[in-house]
Amino acid sequence: MTFSLTILGSSSALPTSKRFPSAHVLNAHERLFLIDCGEGTQIQLRKYKLKLSHIDNIFISHVHGDHTLGLIGLISTLNLLGRKTKLSIFAHASLQPILNQNILFFINELNFPIEFIPLNSKKHEVILKTDSIIVESFPLKHRIQCNGFLFREPTKLPNIKKDAIEKYQLSLTEIVSIKNGSDLISKSGKVIPNSELTFVSSPPRSYAYCSDTRYFEKLANYTKDVDLLYHEATFDKSLEKMAKTTGHSTASQAAQIAKLSNAKKLIIGHYSSRYKDVTPLLNEARLIFPETYSAEDGHVFSV
Amino acid sequence: MTFSLTILGSSSALPTSKRFPSAHVLNAHERLFLIDCGEGTQIQLRKYKLKLSHIDNIFISHVHGDHTLGLIGLISTLNLLGRKTKLSIFAHASLQPILNQNILFFINELNFPIEFIPLNSKKHEVILKTDSIIVESFPLKHRIQCNGFLFREPTKLPNIKKDAIEKYQLSLTEIVSIKNGSDLISKSGKVIPNSELTFVSSPPRSYAYCSDTRYFEKLANYTKDVDLLYHEATFDKSLEKMAKTTGHSTASQAAQIAKLSNAKKLIIGHYSSRYKDVTPLLNEARLIFPETYSAEDGHVFSV
Repeated sequence: MTFSLTILGSSSALPTSKRFPSAHVLNAHERLFLIDCGEGTQIQLRKYKLKLSHIDNIFISHVHGDHTLGLIGLISTLNLLGRKTKLSIFAHASLQPILNQNILFFINELNFPIEFIPLNSKKHEVILKTDSIIVESFPLKHRIQCNGFLFREPTKLPNIKKDAIEKYQLSLTEIVSIKNGSDLISKSGKVIPNSELTFVSSPPRSYAYCSDTRYFEKLANYTKDVDLLYHEATFDKSLEKMAKTTGHSTASQAAQIAKLSNAKKLIIGHYSSRYKDVTPLLNEARLIFPETYSAEDGHVFSV
Repeated sequence: MTFSLTILGSSSALPTSKRFPSAHVLNAHERLFLIDCGEGTQIQLRKYKLKLSHIDNIFISHVHGDHTLGLIGLISTLNLLGRKTKLSIFAHASLQPILNQNILFFINELNFPIEFIPLNSKKHEVILKTDSIIVESFPLKHRIQCNGFLFREPTKLPNIKKDAIEKYQLSLTEIVSIKNGSDLISKSGKVIPNSELTFVSSPPRSYAYCSDTRYFEKLANYTKDVDLLYHEATFDKSLEKMAKTTGHSTASQAAQIAKLSNAKKLIIGHYSSRYKDVTPLLNEARLIFPETYSAEDGHVFSV
């Protein structure tokens, strides 16, 4: 089952010739979860051959233009492509009126429903739960209200050993019961313990998106043990003061959060346009958290 | 003096992996005139190394999203880059309120004035006149009110022959007077006719933008003798009926307008996303107007 992240945009407020503004897309079991939607997101989705029709949920961290201005173009294109099914948008409540005004003005007739789910930017909570994914939202600390997101697979039931199915000729009812933890009582009355019949499934995978935010340690509580952590690194450590004033982080601070989270891998991005080459930021982060990688438009990170 | 056009976007409503939505930029004497501003225009401007600070005037043909959705991102970026000077936007009056709402919502504090000039989409008129360029607006026939634009250099005064300046030791006053058509009366009282002192300047150059529009012959009156004509060709001739219904043109019809206009060169574009290869449209147009070229993102046409 796929669990992979594609970077669509890795710049901060000013896009560059190589970096589009913020947008990520998580492919979890062939459904696409779009996280932020900067200008040109629909163009990047096409460029990287990600099917627009596989997007049902969009998560907007905060309502700054570099994270939202691609929404209306994307919605317009989905409409032209004949979409009929619901699109859910999770965002701060203030986005809804301006989004509606733009839809009214720019889209002749919207042929699919948009469900707008206002985010609580003070609370850590589950905002979406399906068979394949659980999405949590948690507060970040930016100049305006801002949410981070954690995407994680539900805890998986153990798998049944193939040879056990054959040996004991297990029925479907028995299989479900064993997967849920029961022992087996064989036809001869013998108790076969659950541990002899099952093996542990691959652990649930997870991805967390933290942008935009200034450094705060509590963030690591929300992203504990995450497999893949994206944490913005707008500046290098020499600009720590500016980072704090503008509600952003340095590469070192991103790495610190990855370390405190016990993350397996860190991606940094949302780079200030002043960095033509981001190697110094990457090196700075790797001193603290060696498993750090750079967000580059089009790069795919599989978990 | 530069007079060249860069194609920033050549798709119709649905952008593709190779074509951004509509935007052209005309470099006339090192000032940039932006014509339409689809989503991602600011990214294309950077990609093709066109200086954002050299744009003072933006011309919007009509208020469909594929011609306008890049405006707010571009304005936001100009603001972040510290712009202080006026930006003029020529567009249908209906764009102003929604543009203002978006500016209010997405831009914290706008530090430069925006002058909004509403276009009359029923009239052929001069809308801008500077020392180096005259811009005319004229009506197109689309599903909503739509304007075409003609950019032309003012008629140039004749040049003074270098040897005449030396021979007759002409003063600045005499030069201005001769350039404006006077003969010279030499110190000995002899009349030197103007034609002996001057030579004709290079003829004024021109570019016309016609998108979106269905075919109508009168359009050629507005683009008479133009050097470079851009005329949309959303469809091939087999889809002429669809072109008419949707307010668009075929490649043959674009070529017909170029022929009727006595244009020197035609660029076709605004292609429907159904055409992965636009060679058939180009061939179709060339049968009627051989000097036809295809709009491709990043291509530069010098006049």
